[in-house]
Amino acid sequence: MIVVMKPGATPQQVQHVVDLIREFGLREHVICGTDRTVVACIGDKRMVDKGAIETAAMVDRIVPILAPYKMASTEVKTDRSRIEIGPGRFPIGGTKVGVIAGPCAVENRDQLLRTADAVKAAGAIGLRAGAFKPRTSPYSFQGLGMEGLKILAEARQATGLAVVTEVVSVEQIPAVVECADVLQVGARNMQNYPLLDAVGRTRTPVLLKRGLSATLEEFLLAAEYILNGGNTQVILCERGIRTYEDYVRNTLPLASVPELNDKTHLPVLVDPSHGTGHAHLVPAMSRAAIAAGADGLIIEAHLDPEHAMSDGGQSITPAVLGELMPVLKRIAQAIGRDM
Amino acid sequence: MIVVMKPGATPQQVQHVVDLIREFGLREHVICGTDRTVVACIGDKRMVDKGAIETAAMVDRIVPILAPYKMASTEVKTDRSRIEIGPGRFPIGGTKVGVIAGPCAVENRDQLLRTADAVKAAGAIGLRAGAFKPRTSPYSFQGLGMEGLKILAEARQATGLAVVTEVVSVEQIPAVVECADVLQVGARNMQNYPLLDAVGRTRTPVLLKRGLSATLEEFLLAAEYILNGGNTQVILCERGIRTYEDYVRNTLPLASVPELNDKTHLPVLVDPSHGTGHAHLVPAMSRAAIAAGADGLIIEAHLDPEHAMSDGGQSITPAVLGELMPVLKRIAQAIGRDM
Amino acid sequence: MIVVMKPGATPQQVQHVVDLIREFGLREHVICGTDRTVVACIGDKRMVDKGAIETAAMVDRIVPILAPYKMASTEVKTDRSRIEIGPGRFPIGGTKVGVIAGPCAVENRDQLLRTADAVKAAGAIGLRAGAFKPRTSPYSFQGLGMEGLKILAEARQATGLAVVTEVVSVEQIPAVVECADVLQVGARNMQNYPLLDAVGRTRTPVLLKRGLSATLEEFLLAAEYILNGGNTQVILCERGIRTYEDYVRNTLPLASVPELNDKTHLPVLVDPSHGTGHAHLVPAMSRAAIAAGADGLIIEAHLDPEHAMSDGGQSITPAVLGELMPVLKRIAQAIGRDM
Amino acid sequence: MIVVMKPGATPQQVQHVVDLIREFGLREHVICGTDRTVVACIGDKRMVDKGAIETAAMVDRIVPILAPYKMASTEVKTDRSRIEIGPGRFPIGGTKVGVIAGPCAVENRDQLLRTADAVKAAGAIGLRAGAFKPRTSPYSFQGLGMEGLKILAEARQATGLAVVTEVVSVEQIPAVVECADVLQVGARNMQNYPLLDAVGRTRTPVLLKRGLSATLEEFLLAAEYILNGGNTQVILCERGIRTYEDYVRNTLPLASVPELNDKTHLPVLVDPSHGTGHAHLVPAMSRAAIAAGADGLIIEAHLDPEHAMSDGGQSITPAVLGELMPVLKRIAQAIGRDM
Repeated sequence: MIVVMKPGATPQQVQHVVDLIREFGLREHVICGTDRTVVACIGDKRMVDKGAIETAAMVDRIVPILAPYKMASTEVKTDRSRIEIGPGRFPIGGTKVGVIAGPCAVENRDQLLRTADAVKAAGAIGLRAGAFKPRTSPYSFQGLGMEGLKILAEARQATGLAVVTEVVSVEQIPAVVECADVLQVGARNMQNYPLLDAVGRTRTPVLLKRGLSATLEEFLLAAEYILNGGNTQVILCERGIRTYEDYVRNTLPLASVPELNDKTHLPVLVDPSHGTGHAHLVPAMSRAAIAAGADGLIIEAHLDPEHAMSDGGQSITPAVLGELMPVLKRIAQAIGRDM
Repeated sequence: MIVVMKPGATPQQVQHVVDLIREFGLREHVICGTDRTVVACIGDKRMVDKGAIETAAMVDRIVPILAPYKMASTEVKTDRSRIEIGPGRFPIGGTKVGVIAGPCAVENRDQLLRTADAVKAAGAIGLRAGAFKPRTSPYSFQGLGMEGLKILAEARQATGLAVVTEVVSVEQIPAVVECADVLQVGARNMQNYPLLDAVGRTRTPVLLKRGLSATLEEFLLAAEYILNGGNTQVILCERGIRTYEDYVRNTLPLASVPELNDKTHLPVLVDPSHGTGHAHLVPAMSRAAIAAGADGLIIEAHLDPEHAMSDGGQSITPAVLGELMPVLKRIAQAIGRDM
Repeated sequence: MIVVMKPGATPQQVQHVVDLIREFGLREHVICGTDRTVVACIGDKRMVDKGAIETAAMVDRIVPILAPYKMASTEVKTDRSRIEIGPGRFPIGGTKVGVIAGPCAVENRDQLLRTADAVKAAGAIGLRAGAFKPRTSPYSFQGLGMEGLKILAEARQATGLAVVTEVVSVEQIPAVVECADVLQVGARNMQNYPLLDAVGRTRTPVLLKRGLSATLEEFLLAAEYILNGGNTQVILCERGIRTYEDYVRNTLPLASVPELNDKTHLPVLVDPSHGTGHAHLVPAMSRAAIAAGADGLIIEAHLDPEHAMSDGGQSITPAVLGELMPVLKRIAQAIGRDM
Repeated sequence: MIVVMKPGATPQQVQHVVDLIREFGLREHVICGTDRTVVACIGDKRMVDKGAIETAAMVDRIVPILAPYKMASTEVKTDRSRIEIGPGRFPIGGTKVGVIAGPCAVENRDQLLRTADAVKAAGAIGLRAGAFKPRTSPYSFQGLGMEGLKILAEARQATGLAVVTEVVSVEQIPAVVECADVLQVGARNMQNYPLLDAVGRTRTPVLLKRGLSATLEEFLLAAEYILNGGNTQVILCERGIRTYEDYVRNTLPLASVPELNDKTHLPVLVDPSHGTGHAHLVPAMSRAAIAAGADGLIIEAHLDPEHAMSDGGQSITPAVLGELMPVLKRIAQAIGRDM
């Protein structure tokens, strides 16, 4: 952390900042520049409220230097994490990229089992579907709940696909752990700390989605909550961010993939469905995500999008998925991976 | 809802859309324009997944017309809601504007009681302070928990101020309801639906903060969850949104105040502390918020910001608050209100 | 500027950075922290391409410390600039706030003269109207051009109001300087450097609008171009920025007003018309801007907004302006200013 | 265009809107829904100021339906435009993707000629470099001007590469047309209408960069200005947009590539250098852009980025480019194209 003083700060004012820094258990390094003085702070700043120093007289601003996450960082763990999911123990974060597909929500038993078969036939290694749906409107379909979980368990048994499903509250976790291979923490819950703590106490892989307007640092700090709880199996998922763009539901900023690959050892999936909001954009962004270096994709697929109970507009059919898969495989191979 | 067809859509493709619309229980109205055909849908669209229709052949896009919230809307309830808070039953949403102030967190008994006295002396009608703190980093101070609640109860008794404090999980609600006059749902939890449902089942006023990048429609739909649960005492709080601006923690978009006053009968407070992130910007934005028509303010105030355990950089002192209050009163009077 | 090295950088890699820094004519200060080394650079960095150092081996990132503008900064000129405009030499940046009002475009002689009379009667000190209109679509009304300038000159003569009008290209400047008291550089041209250079060579006051997504630093650097050309009469204008918000044309971030008052000696106006895009939001945001400390307002006013040739939706009538003015005056007085 | 009335609008108020619509030369279609009335407008709305109707009594808002661009649209011209550039007449927009590379600025003759040779050897089909540099700060290197143009002409002669260089003002165009194969209109000038008009009067291909926070509609309307001037050779370039993300200079929203391919017949290049701002992110985003369907790339390459006079931090070396090219070729082939 660097404390930047305003021009004209007196030696007493600089000393006051130095005193504060020492009080916080840090050491200081005062640098007198041509226009102003800056004070560099050395030591562990994670427990310090940096803002507090900002209110000292003639302090201009505080510039943080060190990212406050540790366990998620490549600085602490340099080898990449590989997280095996599902009955088939598919390794997310290895050489092979994997595709997880399925409907937004479990709508009924028949729909889910048929979709599971179809996405498996297309080459998916996992099945996604929500039993508990967090919906923006209280009047929208909220999911089948426990009934949905049972159907998911049946689909897993029938297909051997890894089941990925969302948890929206702490109490659901024990039931979901029974039926699912991966606990999804949705974008709206990325900073729901009691939920992060709770999934951190399980030993089930967690798919953590980036918040709607989260920075990468906030995203990694959310992962840090889970890692800090003892659960090392965290898969990150880029699903788009909110910007001024109006032709998409979210803007999919794929540069986060190589940047996260730099900053963290955790694997990174991309969700091109929420990342665009429109089925016609999903194939192109799926291809781009693999080319950018994503460890896999999570795609919304529905047998009959026109009649989907949620997210129909961004769901592709298993048929479209089937045509996309060989293209994705060739792209993976083009960058030295496989599928 | 308007379904916009692509140019060149055939009569059969338009008819297919009409069939879908009817299937959803709506009536259609087909309009053939010079360049393209649009289909207007009439009926209650709240339960319809609009996206689904988007996937029909030759549909360009769906334009929603009606806001999906009802109970929060001035279309349903035209008289303004007035929500009385605290032992003094101060009416938020009446002619008078009220200021709620206090530290980010309850740090200890002495700090809180002295701060409560100081903000009361300055003219505040409520005391804010967190016992449970949602923090971006797992290494930051997380609040005193139940111990903090007891101190808050004591401060209320001593001063008569309305106590506003945050709930971050469903299980805390019974304890918080005992000690607090207003349950705060924080920005990060604006779309934590189990939490919204749970505060909706209480009969304690709720202060709902706008999410970090929520639209006003999403904000009002979050309020709708609470109203839908039977709790009519919802106070909205604009606390700034995330934009590309880098000199502030958040961008405070005050036009939301008159716009919300148009769209909803619920009262609106402004939080200039999170709304800027810097103490030196708080007085100006407090003044602006009142001038824009806010029903009050919620301000972070700390006796010694340099030593605050959290949010020090955005906390003003009670002394600064004391100087600000008469200015705010004059502005309130300038627009026909009072303080 | 601070160069942050990655953890594990070798002494040779740090030395290489030090060599680069010296090559750029700067002095270095190496600080070895607990986790990583940072190198602080001392000297005038304005001509250095900071990015270049970022590509050196094991450099993590570059943190700029000093704002690259000089002449616009309160660090260089501490007394506030006051810029007198129009026949009446109204001082923008003094104790009194001033309101400039008028239609988006000069539509015809009668419209402009009648509007000028009406806004003067309401208490405005300046008249705004465009003769050259930069329009997003090539099919929209592009302004009356030279004919419009003549009408503006006539309105100035008739009313004594200061005339503010936009220049969109270098060649127009001589003609506009003849007819106008203030040259407006629009938001879309904030980084049109040949235009900034050219208005910097005049001695006519310039109203510089903030770009659609400009940072305050970029805004002040644009002002610096003008100041650097020798024209010290620059008035800044906050007109809203582009964000994800969809109920407004732009988000009006009023915290820029106190922040600019801190960072620069130049006066700051606010444009609540473009800043919101909707007439019903203009009065509230006009009040808020004055309360936040703006030196004045520039408001779109039209005698018959339903028939305006451009920006009708965000234009208030002179009658609404007339009702607003005494409220603004009371707010100005509430904060120790006047009108 | 759809005019949405507020609930409770009287028949007279609806009729007033109908009258306005007819006055604008449009026909109306009144639809009475369950909650409110909407009025659909039929006819050519491009010359209508839609906002004007918004100010009529009890109008809630205006919903535009038709994009206001015509000549850029696939609705008007369905076959894709193919634009041949340079001495080699490489077709941008055909099956093959092309890479244009080179330094941010022409720094001197030796640098440019050596870089041209190096990027040609790597497989580039074009050379980019600025002679006139629009720089955020007046204190930064502003380019070599006419001298730079001569060096570019020499490089073209020596290598046969297509030369792409920026024009920042109307007066430069004749000189640049002599030396360059493609006129670049930079992001900051995307809405500089006199410049768009002027390049529209040439018959030289134009590379139009997306503005810093332009919507796709505004981007296509800027292209429309050029097309409207008679120049049909417009190449669009996605170069990233401004968002809250702080690890990149710009967020690169690659979904714009398939969306533009849907909406317009014009070819689309991607600039991964400005699109990320960091050399280490350029290879991944180059791969992603090709996979998403871009017609080519424009990449900043510098022989010695540490000593670049501008944009050093986002420049890759020709060596890195040379390694990247075969990967890009394999990806192009994976999606049925070539390089």
